[in-house]
Amino acid sequence: MTLKEYSKADLREFYKKQLSLLEDFKKKGLKLDMSRGKPSAEQLDLSNEMLTHCLDGDHISENGVDCRNYGVLDGIYEAKRLFMEMIGVGRWEIIIGGNSSLQMMYDVLAKAMLLGVKDSPKPWCKCEKVKWLCPAPGYDRHFAICEAFGIEMITVPMLSDGPDMDMVEKLVAEDEAIKGIWCVPRYANPTGVVYSDRVVTRFANMKTAAPDFRIFWDDAYCVHSLDDNVPRILNILDECKHAGNPDRVLIFASTSKISFPGGGVAIVGASEENINFMKAQMAYQTIGYDKLNQLRHAKFFRTYEGILEHMKKHRAIIKPKFDAVLDALDSELAPLGAGSWSRPKGGYFISFDGEPGTAKRIVALCKEAGVTLTGAGATFPYGIDPEDKNIRIAPTYPELPELKAAMEIFCVAVKAATAEKLLEA
Amino acid sequence: MTLKEYSKADLREFYKKQLSLLEDFKKKGLKLDMSRGKPSAEQLDLSNEMLTHCLDGDHISENGVDCRNYGVLDGIYEAKRLFMEMIGVGRWEIIIGGNSSLQMMYDVLAKAMLLGVKDSPKPWCKCEKVKWLCPAPGYDRHFAICEAFGIEMITVPMLSDGPDMDMVEKLVAEDEAIKGIWCVPRYANPTGVVYSDRVVTRFANMKTAAPDFRIFWDDAYCVHSLDDNVPRILNILDECKHAGNPDRVLIFASTSKISFPGGGVAIVGASEENINFMKAQMAYQTIGYDKLNQLRHAKFFRTYEGILEHMKKHRAIIKPKFDAVLDALDSELAPLGAGSWSRPKGGYFISFDGEPGTAKRIVALCKEAGVTLTGAGATFPYGIDPEDKNIRIAPTYPELPELKAAMEIFCVAVKAATAEKLLEA
Repeated sequence: MTLKEYSKADLREFYKKQLSLLEDFKKKGLKLDMSRGKPSAEQLDLSNEMLTHCLDGDHISENGVDCRNYGVLDGIYEAKRLFMEMIGVGRWEIIIGGNSSLQMMYDVLAKAMLLGVKDSPKPWCKCEKVKWLCPAPGYDRHFAICEAFGIEMITVPMLSDGPDMDMVEKLVAEDEAIKGIWCVPRYANPTGVVYSDRVVTRFANMKTAAPDFRIFWDDAYCVHSLDDNVPRILNILDECKHAGNPDRVLIFASTSKISFPGGGVAIVGASEENINFMKAQMAYQTIGYDKLNQLRHAKFFRTYEGILEHMKKHRAIIKPKFDAVLDALDSELAPLGAGSWSRPKGGYFISFDGEPGTAKRIVALCKEAGVTLTGAGATFPYGIDPEDKNIRIAPTYPELPELKAAMEIFCVAVKAATAEKLLEA
Repeated sequence: MTLKEYSKADLREFYKKQLSLLEDFKKKGLKLDMSRGKPSAEQLDLSNEMLTHCLDGDHISENGVDCRNYGVLDGIYEAKRLFMEMIGVGRWEIIIGGNSSLQMMYDVLAKAMLLGVKDSPKPWCKCEKVKWLCPAPGYDRHFAICEAFGIEMITVPMLSDGPDMDMVEKLVAEDEAIKGIWCVPRYANPTGVVYSDRVVTRFANMKTAAPDFRIFWDDAYCVHSLDDNVPRILNILDECKHAGNPDRVLIFASTSKISFPGGGVAIVGASEENINFMKAQMAYQTIGYDKLNQLRHAKFFRTYEGILEHMKKHRAIIKPKFDAVLDALDSELAPLGAGSWSRPKGGYFISFDGEPGTAKRIVALCKEAGVTLTGAGATFPYGIDPEDKNIRIAPTYPELPELKAAMEIFCVAVKAATAEKLLEA
């Protein structure tokens, strides 16, 4: 019987029970964190060799560059080769950057504001208004960059195979103030959605009013599969070229969740003309990124296949954690009809939708009982979830027993908040 | 006898002789590079241990942070402690950044343009005009950042103890469009000037029309002494505090020429309020910089004294190179009265001033004979040396025999260009 089918009296009884369970949890003084998509220490151990003997006596790149010294603005070749296949671009279509793809995206957007991108009629900060499409639920740090620069965000609903393309096509065709869109194309954050071929081709072919519209294609989870296969998605750069819009897309990725978060390398891929434009802008900004860390990665992973092998080891650690979350939700909440959730085939998150108007309450109840979740609303522009129902669950960081304990609390919190909401109605 | 005292006939003979010497050099097909301030491989070897056993089995910071994972926006404490003393700031007055102080300066200026600095009435890009003071000869990459952002550069002459402060004080008091100044306070690039106490206090105390005026204090060579002592200069942040202008200065430094260029860490120091303001802006840009590299540096150098000891090893390698350059200039050019040059006590450069109107010609003659120098004019805003006389000599990168060969050519080129100019007159 679902909670909606309960009698008022039974529901009241049920509600009291959940509150008392939460009181018990509080007394235990737990401190569990499911707030961010962080790898666990066990996952980081997989790359420890990179920190020690990886560069023993050898800091010269294949083509003779001493990686300890200045130079090579766009990254050493062996690092480019390693990541070209991963993000699906060619030799002249890639830059290897610093330690953070987020910073790279912020940077590209900052330069777009100040100087413009290729084909910009003027720097974006000279436009009366700059608007951005934000598929939601989405990644809070993407939205925060727009907020930092005063870019007006327009929410686009996420459907089961990508953003609502009818809405995207209509908006970008009509409004030249819309300069771009955030996309996480495979294993979208937090929904786990994998973009369909149809969505990719529509992105490549759509008419945009802005001549300098850019898709920020954040391929953060391109090799982060939870089953045996990396999902084949259409190559967005190829599709954009075929459509005659080669400069439309900027592909970002990093090894933050492959090697070390904050200690990895970031990557941007795009048309050769876009890359050359970006390099010309970058030449004012830096002499080069950390080539030693690029060399570490090239030596440690060797090939794209090496990365895929490495990701299998990650999967062996995190798959049981995703399963534990789903098991808890399936066994505790499904029978009660309390909420719905994604069953991702990759990425770092499970997206939970509660009864409308309960997300904030669930997060607060969890907090009181010792479980930190990503703030409710974080997955929407301006931190406002119009239905107050979406919660992002990040299963990777806690150890399995902790995760199970946290999910026990989460499920009780959902039950309590749902009953509370139904009793109000 | 100086060249100016030569008879026309003797000068013509002398000139021919130099041209024929240059022809001989050309035939040798040499390829020597004195263009950039790069450490030599021998210097980089000093830090090789950092690349191998430095982090063996230990990636946890003093206060328990796993440096392999996300977090700690402003840098780990042991790295802060290491560099606080180096740049003369306190615990809450420092951020440890990425691999490049140049990028940090670009970044701070980009954010100033887009968002403003603390106390900005509005973002600088919303001002009708932004101007910047550029002591010259100075660092070409500083000037390039201004050029990238369309900031109007005003040249200020470098005197023997710092920029012409009469001119600086007058300009900043009158013109609120002047938002800042580039300074390399000890071992200025390229003159080697060390700022006097009087210059530092005048910077701290001067009245500025702009309420958000900023000194970009690039302390790139703060420990790069060529004799036994790190030069004591007045602490600019302390002076600014005493003067009631605590937020006026931003101090930048890096380990690019201490450990590895491009593989080091960058540092910014400023008042606590400035630092908090910058951290709030940074929080939109990144989750954090490479803490593993910060930890490497903290473990390798341990203390500020450890850095100073390390710099003695650098000095042992580069001092003979500076001496070789000066010996060549002193023996070949001084007797002829051809040019004048700095005798730096630290830093990475020797600044050479030829006869007005000869710098471009000297660089071109050197190039033909196989020696690459920094482009003439590079040390001035917009690449235009009004007198066409300054050349920056970078002695550190070539091995000593190569450097001597390059200086032989340089001196002949100076002789030829000087004679040519005198013959024209």
